[in-house]
This record gives sequence, structure tokens and C-alpha cells, in this order.
Amino acid sequence: MNFEYSNKSIELQQKLISFIEEHIVPIEEEFIAFQNDKNNMWKRFPKIETLKQKAKDAGLWNLFLPNNYGELSPGLTNLEYAPLAEIMGKKIWISEIFNCSAPDTGNMEVLAKYGSESQKDKWLKPLMNGEIRSAFLMTEPQVASSDATNIETSIILDGDEYVINGRKWWSSGAMDPHCKVAIIMGKTDPNAHRHQQQSMVLVPMNIEGLEVIRPLSVLGYYDSPEGHAEIQLTNVRVSKENLILGEGRGFEIAQGRLGPGRIHHCMRLVGMAQYALEIMAKRTLERETFGKKFYDYSSIRHEIAKSACEIEQARLLTLSAADKMDKAGNKEAKDIIAMIKIVAPNMAQKVIDRAMQILGGKGVGPDTYLPHYFAIARMLRLADGPDEVHMYQLGKSCIKKYGNK
Amino acid sequence: MNFEYSNKSIELQQKLISFIEEHIVPIEEEFIAFQNDKNNMWKRFPKIETLKQKAKDAGLWNLFLPNNYGELSPGLTNLEYAPLAEIMGKKIWISEIFNCSAPDTGNMEVLAKYGSESQKDKWLKPLMNGEIRSAFLMTEPQVASSDATNIETSIILDGDEYVINGRKWWSSGAMDPHCKVAIIMGKTDPNAHRHQQQSMVLVPMNIEGLEVIRPLSVLGYYDSPEGHAEIQLTNVRVSKENLILGEGRGFEIAQGRLGPGRIHHCMRLVGMAQYALEIMAKRTLERETFGKKFYDYSSIRHEIAKSACEIEQARLLTLSAADKMDKAGNKEAKDIIAMIKIVAPNMAQKVIDRAMQILGGKGVGPDTYLPHYFAIARMLRLADGPDEVHMYQLGKSCIKKYGNK
Amino acid sequence: MNFEYSNKSIELQQKLISFIEEHIVPIEEEFIAFQNDKNNMWKRFPKIETLKQKAKDAGLWNLFLPNNYGELSPGLTNLEYAPLAEIMGKKIWISEIFNCSAPDTGNMEVLAKYGSESQKDKWLKPLMNGEIRSAFLMTEPQVASSDATNIETSIILDGDEYVINGRKWWSSGAMDPHCKVAIIMGKTDPNAHRHQQQSMVLVPMNIEGLEVIRPLSVLGYYDSPEGHAEIQLTNVRVSKENLILGEGRGFEIAQGRLGPGRIHHCMRLVGMAQYALEIMAKRTLERETFGKKFYDYSSIRHEIAKSACEIEQARLLTLSAADKMDKAGNKEAKDIIAMIKIVAPNMAQKVIDRAMQILGGKGVGPDTYLPHYFAIARMLRLADGPDEVHMYQLGKSCIKKYGNK
Amino acid sequence: MNFEYSNKSIELQQKLISFIEEHIVPIEEEFIAFQNDKNNMWKRFPKIETLKQKAKDAGLWNLFLPNNYGELSPGLTNLEYAPLAEIMGKKIWISEIFNCSAPDTGNMEVLAKYGSESQKDKWLKPLMNGEIRSAFLMTEPQVASSDATNIETSIILDGDEYVINGRKWWSSGAMDPHCKVAIIMGKTDPNAHRHQQQSMVLVPMNIEGLEVIRPLSVLGYYDSPEGHAEIQLTNVRVSKENLILGEGRGFEIAQGRLGPGRIHHCMRLVGMAQYALEIMAKRTLERETFGKKFYDYSSIRHEIAKSACEIEQARLLTLSAADKMDKAGNKEAKDIIAMIKIVAPNMAQKVIDRAMQILGGKGVGPDTYLPHYFAIARMLRLADGPDEVHMYQLGKSCIKKYGNK
Repeated sequence: MNFEYSNKSIELQQKLISFIEEHIVPIEEEFIAFQNDKNNMWKRFPKIETLKQKAKDAGLWNLFLPNNYGELSPGLTNLEYAPLAEIMGKKIWISEIFNCSAPDTGNMEVLAKYGSESQKDKWLKPLMNGEIRSAFLMTEPQVASSDATNIETSIILDGDEYVINGRKWWSSGAMDPHCKVAIIMGKTDPNAHRHQQQSMVLVPMNIEGLEVIRPLSVLGYYDSPEGHAEIQLTNVRVSKENLILGEGRGFEIAQGRLGPGRIHHCMRLVGMAQYALEIMAKRTLERETFGKKFYDYSSIRHEIAKSACEIEQARLLTLSAADKMDKAGNKEAKDIIAMIKIVAPNMAQKVIDRAMQILGGKGVGPDTYLPHYFAIARMLRLADGPDEVHMYQLGKSCIKKYGNK
Repeated sequence: MNFEYSNKSIELQQKLISFIEEHIVPIEEEFIAFQNDKNNMWKRFPKIETLKQKAKDAGLWNLFLPNNYGELSPGLTNLEYAPLAEIMGKKIWISEIFNCSAPDTGNMEVLAKYGSESQKDKWLKPLMNGEIRSAFLMTEPQVASSDATNIETSIILDGDEYVINGRKWWSSGAMDPHCKVAIIMGKTDPNAHRHQQQSMVLVPMNIEGLEVIRPLSVLGYYDSPEGHAEIQLTNVRVSKENLILGEGRGFEIAQGRLGPGRIHHCMRLVGMAQYALEIMAKRTLERETFGKKFYDYSSIRHEIAKSACEIEQARLLTLSAADKMDKAGNKEAKDIIAMIKIVAPNMAQKVIDRAMQILGGKGVGPDTYLPHYFAIARMLRLADGPDEVHMYQLGKSCIKKYGNK
Repeated sequence: MNFEYSNKSIELQQKLISFIEEHIVPIEEEFIAFQNDKNNMWKRFPKIETLKQKAKDAGLWNLFLPNNYGELSPGLTNLEYAPLAEIMGKKIWISEIFNCSAPDTGNMEVLAKYGSESQKDKWLKPLMNGEIRSAFLMTEPQVASSDATNIETSIILDGDEYVINGRKWWSSGAMDPHCKVAIIMGKTDPNAHRHQQQSMVLVPMNIEGLEVIRPLSVLGYYDSPEGHAEIQLTNVRVSKENLILGEGRGFEIAQGRLGPGRIHHCMRLVGMAQYALEIMAKRTLERETFGKKFYDYSSIRHEIAKSACEIEQARLLTLSAADKMDKAGNKEAKDIIAMIKIVAPNMAQKVIDRAMQILGGKGVGPDTYLPHYFAIARMLRLADGPDEVHMYQLGKSCIKKYGNK
Repeated sequence: MNFEYSNKSIELQQKLISFIEEHIVPIEEEFIAFQNDKNNMWKRFPKIETLKQKAKDAGLWNLFLPNNYGELSPGLTNLEYAPLAEIMGKKIWISEIFNCSAPDTGNMEVLAKYGSESQKDKWLKPLMNGEIRSAFLMTEPQVASSDATNIETSIILDGDEYVINGRKWWSSGAMDPHCKVAIIMGKTDPNAHRHQQQSMVLVPMNIEGLEVIRPLSVLGYYDSPEGHAEIQLTNVRVSKENLILGEGRGFEIAQGRLGPGRIHHCMRLVGMAQYALEIMAKRTLERETFGKKFYDYSSIRHEIAKSACEIEQARLLTLSAADKMDKAGNKEAKDIIAMIKIVAPNMAQKVIDRAMQILGGKGVGPDTYLPHYFAIARMLRLADGPDEVHMYQLGKSCIKKYGNK
């Protein structure tokens, strides 16, 4: 393991921090007010496009992309990207400014890695340019989707077209006015081997038969403008050119997609927890009860110390996972990716919970990011595989590895 | 300790359960849809008034009131009320149907116990009739209100009137269109002894100088129609007849108000947790992953077993606290009230967290009460005194009690 | 539920406390010194017999026995016994003085309930008189004995005798010089229905073929003089009259034996935790660091407050279980017995852990009961069924009960 | 951060593992039997000296010493030493074979760093040769020694001698027959500035006035032959040449000594936890209950997965702390040393607790290292500063660092 950041990464970190100071901090309150106004639901913050252009001009664009795709990305390793994602995680909404927000990042990786030339032309380019956004339709309301083989949406070849029928939910990003395309997972062959039944197809959002039923709140948050949609697919027809990679390869793509996606979430969660640590440390200097500064209460110091310990450990584990992915590949890194996917959301939930408690009413109200981050951390104990599934697989793997020593 | 329910309580429990089955369950989905529609923010559910009348007719009205106030209340002990509050806690929004919802319950108790005859006439009567609702203005954004001596709002006598200036927030109930009156806590004499500086006054909501700045979301929830408001008080003038009990007696009233208020919350939290237990037990029969029913996973059974253990313990502690309040009075019961105030919200948060995890996407979305109850439980670790303040006092008390044995 | 203690129980509590003050406290240090001296391993504390006689004279004898067995027991209900067991739990070694220590209590119940007249004459009488002690041989080193159907010791009828072969361990009590008889569980018919394979036989300790291999330490403690033995049974022959109740009824007896045994452990664990609470409260008044009394540290107060909350809840749950056993029988009470068996040892381990931490070096050394109680609590998360088995069964039962609501 | 091991470290790791396989594993059972036999208390395992010579011959000697002290040490960095200490931690008693066991390691560092030439000649040389052992006398029974300024032993200059009076306990190593010298901390000037009152002196164990009162058990374990002693110092007189570094510099030395000591403990704790992980993984393949292999229970897999996550995080944090000590010095590394001192013992206690539970009776008995490691981990939450003191300081430091961001 070698967690030294490269010069490239260090420079980008400094650039990113400066950019945030200069361009984002001054309009942050305005953004929060916009966000808290229910009338703005499903509308995009007007200043976001200008900020995106500035970020692109500054070379702070598509930072997440692991390989070099020309001018549009600096081509960082996972280890190089980790501290940048952590910084963005401290103000989670700004990821989009740098074209680094889920689910676009995962979708772009899928297209870059597995897309045909025409698929790349049509969808990857505008995504990498930040002209459009995208959605990823996997989870279904009728089955326990944590076991992906349960997924039931059918994708049936009919002449030159695939016909898609099914119900999806937790389709993140689908509410965004800019969302133009979705990647949909479903079964092309229910009789094939368990891991070869599923395929992925590209579907334009404005297609006939695709109906957005409703936005779902997640722990009370609608996450506007991206949102999480419930979607009905009724005889949706797309050209067979829209299939990605090949029939029966949905699982393979999902595996390739989820590794990086999971670790990106974890990097940002470390940032959210760090934000919570800083805001609670600050609060202890401002408040007092019963004639004593918060600062002086041993119990409060303990909460802060525990948080620091947990954050630092999760950070190191994330870096270690990133390093392993870079050096040995996502497949070899699967155990440590499982580890960090278990650790980071739980850690963040706990740390943020402590911060809310120390901030009191302000901590649970709309004036800090804390309650929203709390919801995100909690949700991420389910999204991309619930803790239980990761522990089940990791436990099995450990038993294999250590059981015969 | 004697936790047998009286016949009176048992009859009311059965009546309440039947009422819910007959009148509430059939319109529950309609209520949830109304609630989830952002256009209904700060509007009251149209059918609520009819339901209230039915509940009143059935004698299921003002169940919380500890003493007999004529026909409008059955006059239950805390122990008798506990199982009724637990039942209402399973569908938290229905408390209002039985005129049993905070902060009205606490405000009614204050008026019943400490109000003058004219105050009772003017405010207690319509509250007990369910004609109006009320708010309680204590917490302030500028100070750590968990130490109530920090509260800064000034209440200054000027001729025959009190002039009130200050900023309040987390003024629960203040957004409700029916909210007509607030009880405000503030300082009449900042130079008096620490516990004699504060007083309470009654203030009509539509008075000049009282401005609702904004509703506050609590962990993403606005809790419409009651809401939690931030309120500016600028030279608000009320007749000196509006003072409750006397100058400098605000603390005394707060103490009398908070004991029952806290235990009511705890009773309802036990109900919320029980709801979570039932919904997760049910889910285990419906879902499967990796070829195995949820039911068969030992880890899931453990989660359910732990939840059952924690709920039952919190329930017994709540009953024990209620029993002590009934027999020895609120003051003597202060340690056990502190205990249950520490235990119940934490327990509920933990149990609900487990249920969300077992329900997966459905557990964090808008289709069950789980995420809202999660927010409520989390918030109640702060409201009416954060855990830390209760542990600080309880710890002190235990050291006194056991330290010299 | 009705947790009022009867007058009978209250009188015995006072008598017991006085007895301890008068007769035990004055020789407590002497006992501890005896116990800490490795040369006294497997020797009985010389003064114990005199104390037993005094306790018998005072009517503080066989308090645990649920029904009236003449002069030798007051015939208490479980609810009446609970506070007495808690008091004894605070100085765990004194249970024997009142003839209330495991495994004798369980063995006496078995004999009283299921023994033949000659078995009672020969073994129950001297046990109830405190003249001998006994052991219970169930767990085996070669199988996971938490699933009792795994138990492999064979008990084969050969003419008028049973021939017993097998290896047992964790045979509590077997090292005591006074231990004269063991109840052994084993298979009389390996081909019978899963729950009818097992039987129980009485075996004198000094019989040919019964070899004590070694005493086992449990978390470093040998629990002298009772101890926990590993025992080899090689062609041990006993008369067929030694069979208890009948062939294939071992499970039935085990069930009858374990319910009360489990709750007795829990009552004592509440006492051990209460001891820890009192000793840590006391310590906060004696020590200081960094210019501040322990008493004043909020973190220390929190630890004490949490402990008080957890103890009180476990106590109430234990009483509730005792009450249910008294009123509805052990079988009906099985879920709540499972609950308390899960809750009490975990609670005690946690509370004692906190006390050790607050006492520092003294807390982990030989001068208080804390580390020994810590070991006992930890061990009781395994003994009489590990937590996991109880959670597995309780979870199943809850799913049945709540899953279809 | 750069956690790559050097070639030097990797070679030593392989050598160490081979040495253990070849020389230690074959006599391990013999050692355990020796250890479990109470008659061997305070006797040294006879084969230890031969093994020490072999280790010395193999160059596996004094591995802990951070700088090169000639042939007697390979001169490793903390980062290079970490994996070696982890390996030794898996069989904790073998540290002595490589002359790497506390408290000698810390005492050697003190002498190497601060000792006079004659002190080095007299004590450091035989220590480095493994000819003698040593003790460290700091903690006192009468005061909360976690605040080292509380320490009261007096060291008074009288002519050319220091006269020492006081009571010490938890004097680790003092029971060993080979223990020949102690470093004692006490006050030379009670009126000096808080951090300049304390000094350290070298005292031969066989000196007049030094009386070993008794060995202390720690959670039931005597840790023979080293042990933990309570020691009375009555008018002990040593030449003033025995003072280390200078009067009033005791604190400075303690700080220098404790950093490395703490991290060594943590490295070994990671090893102990790893041992627990491996033994519980193995057990899941061997046992079954209710017709199912342990391996197949999701709850058991979860326990193993959680353990793996916690161990890996603690390992990374330990390496990170070692790396920081190497690069920035112990003082700069104080926050991360505090972190790992908080994290590692708690982590190990938790992981070992899980392993004991999965192993059942075997897990708490004398046949594995688990219960002893459990006691060590528990004790290390107190030794070298209780968790609470480290959290108090770390919390303060975090508030300073983050509070004004």
C-alpha cells in the first residue's frame, strides 16, 4: 500500500479548494434558500450552468474518470480521485458542477467501457460534456432487488426491437429536467443460467411507454432536482442497437459499474462525516450550558474524539480500497470494496448523528447539511447493496480465506 | 409497582382499537396521499373534523388529562393512559382525532393547573373542545436552550401590559391554520435568582408584532399542518392578565408541564417501535434473496428478537414511570422520567432503523410511516431536553443515591 | 402485570439484608483473601458451614424453591424470590450460604418435580439439607451443545443397569469436595424422534468409570471450590432405578429445569450490575484528575446514567418474566424468559465494563468483585444457551406473532 | 502516507514466520500445559532460554529498537516493525523469545535514549542481551494515576543518595525471576511546575526497602512469570547516579517512552484480533446446529465480516501512526497515537468477544488464547492511559484544529 498522493492529485486538490472558495462559497446561502423553497421542486438551480462552465474551463471536470478520455478528463487513478471526491462530499450538491455526480459517473463508465461507438457518440459525449444527465433503472418494488437475480423487468427481442415491460423504483436522477437517457437492467432470458439472464439497454427518457409515476422521498428528502423516481415501463420499444455489450451480460456490466460507484459514494461519505466533525468542533466553541462551555464537557470531547477516530479509519480503508482497485483491478479488490461499502455509510451515519446532537435544534433543522447528509448516509446503507448482503459475501470470503489456516 | 390496567383502561383500549379499525383504517391511504402531496402543505386533512366529532361522541376524547374535568375527559391516571397513547403512537397522526396531540396536551395541562378562570374560559375551553390548537414557544436560536436559564426573550411590564421581544424557533404547532394561541416563556427579571427569572404568558397568534418567519423542517419533514415555526416577537403587547401564575414562576410551570409531556412522547415512541416490529416481522414472510426466505436468515431473526427485547423493556420502564408519577407525583418521579426520556427515543430510533433496513427501499421511501417515525424519534432525543442533559442530571442523582452506600 | 412484592417477600428481603450485614460483611475480607490464595484451590471456605447453619436457623434457606416443601423452604413464587436473588447476586459467593446456588437449585427442582420417592430420599433430602452438593453434566466438547440434540453421550440399558459412555465438560460444581451426585444427560435411543432420544440419569460422583480429567478455567477464573470440570465417562454402570422420569424424557426435564435456572441467573446478574453501579458511583466521589473530581465529568455521569437505565429495564423485565412464570407457567413464559436471558448477561457485562473503566487499575484487579462478575456475565451469554440460539427462537416466535397482523 | 513495507521488513516477516513454524509451533501445546499448571506460577518456561538463543542467532532479536544499536538489533523503523509485532501478537507469549516484550522494550528505549554511559553499561547491555528483565513502576493505588501529576512517591536527595518512599502497583514484569531492575517514577520536587515535579530513577529489584507485597491478577490472569506486582518502597536508597536524565525530567521521559510503547501494544492487539478472526472462521467449518453448518448462518457471517472490517481499519490506522512517528516524530504524531490507543484495544476486545461467542464453551475455556487476549485487550483500555484520557486530549486537539475552520 502506498497512499501518497501524486503531484497531479495534490495540484487538483488545491485547485478544487480554491474554486470552491472563490465561486461556490459566495453563492452557497442562495443555493440553500433555493433548495429549501418548495416551489423550486424539480427545478435546477439557475446558476449551476455557469458554474459548470467555469469548472470545465478550470480543468476541474470529469475528475472521476479512471482513464484518460482526451481533454475532457484529467484521467486520474482511484487513489488520485479519492481526496477530490472527499472535498466534494463536504458540499454534496456541488459534485454536479464538476460533472462528478451519480448516477452519471457510473453510466459514463459503463458507456466508456462497454458502449458501442454509436452509443458513445449519442450518449457518452453529451454526458461527458455535461449537456444532459442520465438515470439508472435497476431496483424494483415487487422483489428484493438486493439479490439482483430477482429483478423481473422483461426485455424481449421482437424483430429489430427490444420490448421492455416492468416497474422500477429508486431510479435516481430520473426527475431532473436534463435527464435524457436511462440504462435499464432486465431479463432477456429468464431460463438462462442465473447470472446470464440479465441485460442492459439504453432508453431515452421521453420514449413512449415510459411513465414517471411519482418521485419518491428518501427519509423525507426528495433530492431535487435529480430525485428518485418510480417508473412504469409498458411496451417500451427500442432498437436492438440500444443493447449494451450483449444479451446476458447485464450482470457483468453491473459488477463493473458498481465497484467504482460504491467507492465514490464512500469517498463522499468521508467528506460528509468530516463536514460533521468540523461543524460540531466549531459549535463547541460557541455554546454553553450550566455555566460551562460545550468545549469543556468531557462527554462532548469524547464524541468528537470518537468521530475523528472513525473518520480517519474509514478514510484509510477507502484509500486502501482505491489503491487496490488501481493496482489489482476491481475484481481482486472486491473484498475491500465490500468492507468500505459496509464501513463508510455506517460511520457517516454515526458521526452525523453525533453532530446533530451537539448542534441541537440547529442540527436537525434546515440550516446545515447535517440532516440531509444523515438521510444520505442512512440510504447508502441500502443503496448499491444493503449492508447485510455485503457482510454475507464478505463473511463467506473470509471464511474461505482464514478458515483453513 | 403494579402495572395491571384498570377495567376502565382496558375498555378504552378496546374501544380505541375498534374505532381505529372502523373509522381510520379505511381512509388511511387517502390521508397518506394527502400528506405526500406537497400542494397540501399547511392544509388540514379535510376529514379530520368529522373524525374528531366521532371520537368525541365515542368518549375517546382528551384521554390524556390526568384528572377529571367533567364530561370532556375520562380522567385517567398516567398508567391508564399509557396503553392508549401507545396505540395512537402506531399511527402518530391520529392523536389529534382524540384531542391528544402535543403541544396542546401540555398547554391544556398548564391552563388546567395554573390558569386563571378567565384564561381557562378563553383558551382552555376551546382547546378541550378541539376548536382551536395552540403552540408553545420556548427554544431560541441564539442560545443553548437545553439549559433553560439561557433563554433570553424579554417580557417587560409596561403599565398594564407586558411587552415581549425575542426570537423563538421550534415552535411546534404554530403553522397549523387552527393555531390561535401560544404560551411564551421569557424573562421578566434577568436579575432575579437563576430559577426565578422566567415567566410564561399567553399570546394570541394573530397579534401585532408576532411574525412567523418560516417553517422549519426537522430531518426533512415539515410535519404539516402543525409544523415547527421560527417566530419573531417585536414589541408584542398583551394585557398583564395574560401572565400565567405569576412573575418568576415560568420554571415551576415548565417543570410541571414537561414531566407528563415527556412521558406521553415515550408512550407514543413505544407504539412507533411496535409498529416497526410488526412491519418488519411481516416483511420477512414476503421476501426472499439467494433462494432463502428472509424469515430463515438468522441475522434477521436476531434483529427482530433484539427489537422485541428493547421494546418490551422500554414499555415496562414507561409503565413504571407512569405508575410512579401517579403514586408519588411528578417531582418524586423525576429520575425515572429522565430514564425513560433517555431510553425511549434511542430505542425507537434503533428499532425503526432495523425495520428500514429489512424493508429495503420501501423502508426509506414514502409508503410506510418508518422514515417519518425515524425522524420523530431522532428529534425526540433533542426535544424536551437532549439526552445529554437528562444523563447529566440522572448521573448526578445516582451518584448521590448510591455513592455513599 | 403486578410487581408489588408480597409482605412475605419484603420481610425476607429485610431479614436477608440484616443477615448479610451482621454475619457476612464482617468476614468478607477474610473470604476474599482465602479465595485469592492459590493454595486454597478446591478447598471450601472453612466458615461456610457455620454460616449455612445460621441461615437455616434464620429461615433463610432454600429460598428459590417455588412450592412449599415443608419446613425447609418458605415456598416463594418466582416474583417473591427475585429481589432475594438480586441481593445475593451482589455478593455472588454467598448464595451457597442460603442453599440457593446453581447447579444445586436446578437439580433440586428436577428431583422435587420428577424424581421417584427413592431418588428423593437418597439425593433430594441431603441436597435440601445442604449436606451435599451436586453437578449437572450436559455440555460436550465434541459437538455444538447449544443444539441439545447434538449431545452424544450414550446411556444404554444392559440388564438392570444403564451403561454410560461419553465425554462431558463445563460440568459446573463437579470439583467441589462436597459434590456427591451428578445428573447426566445422554442418548438412550439415537433412533427415536429428535426430541425423544435423550434421557437423564443420576450418577454418584465416586463411581467407577467417572474420571475428572481437569478443572476448566472460565475467562481465567476457576470458580473454586465448585469449579467447572471436564469429565470422562467410561462404562459407568448405574442401576436402572437411577433413570429420572423415563427413557426419552431428557428434553422434557431439561426444559423444566432450564426456565427457572435461567431466570435465577438473571436475577443475580441484576444484582451484580447493581453492585457495579454502586461501586462506580462511590468511586466518583473519591478520585480526581486534571483538577476535577470524577463526579464532575459529564462523560462519567453519562456512563452512570446509562447504567442505571439499563439495570432498571433489565430488572423490570426479570420481574415481568417471573410474574408470567408464576401466573401462566414456564411454557407460556418462554418468550419472555428468552428475552431476559438475552438481555441480562449483556446488560451486566456492559455495566460492569463501565465500572471497571471508572475504577481503573482497581477495577480490573483482585480487590473488587468486578472482574469476576465480568467473567460470569460474559460466560452467561453462553451458558444455558448462547444468545444466538435464544434470539433465533425468539425471532421466530415474534415473526409468527406479529407477521400476520 | 506510504505503507509499503521495505524489503528488510518483508524478509524479516518471512524469517519470523518460518522461525515460529519450525521452533515454536511444535512446543506450543507443551507451553500451554506448563502455563495452565498452577504449580508453575512465577516459574519461567524451561525451554525459553534455548529459543531465545536461536532467535538471537537468526537475527530475530531486539526487532523493536528504532535505531541501529550495532549487531544486537536490525534497526527498524516503526513501520517496518509493525507487521513483525502483529505476527508476535498472534501468540503473545513469544515476544520474549525475540526480546521484544514489554516493559523491557520501553525501558531499553529509555536507557538508550536518555541513559548515562554507566547506566547503559550496567542495565541496557544485559537487557539487550536478554540476560535480565526489568519493571516499570509508575501507577499508584492511592491516586488516579491516569493523571500522572497525581503520582505521589517521593524521591528525595539526601547527600549522595536518593531516598524513595511510596506505594506502587501494576508494576508489570516485577514478578519475573529474571527481573533485576526497575525504573521508578516519583516526585523530586512537589513544589515545582506541574510537569517538572517528577523524575525517574533506576533501582535494583533486590534492594533493601523494596518489598513485593503481592502479585495482582488482571481480570483473573496473573500473567506469570512477568506478573503485575504491588510494591512497597520504604526508605529505598540509591546513588544519585541512578537518576535518569535529570531532576524534573520524568514527564519528558514518560512522554518519550509511552509513544512507542502504546503503538507496540496496538500492533500486537491487531495480531490478537487477527488470531481471533482466524480461529472463528475455522470454527464455522467444523460445527453445526439445527441441521445447518455455522458457516451458513448469516448472523455468523456478519460477525466475521464486521470483525474483518474493524481489524483492517485498525491495522491501517496503526501503520499510519507508525509512518507518522517515523517521518514527523513522536510529538507530531501524538494525535494519531491517541487515536490508535483508543481504537485498537476496543476493537480487539470486540472481535475477541465475538470469537468467544462463536467458539462457545471452548471460547471461554483454557484451550485457546481467546480469554487471555480478551483480558489483555480489556486491560489495555486502561494501561498506558485509559481511553477517557486519550479521548479528552484528542477531543481538545480536534476542537482546536477544526473549530475555527
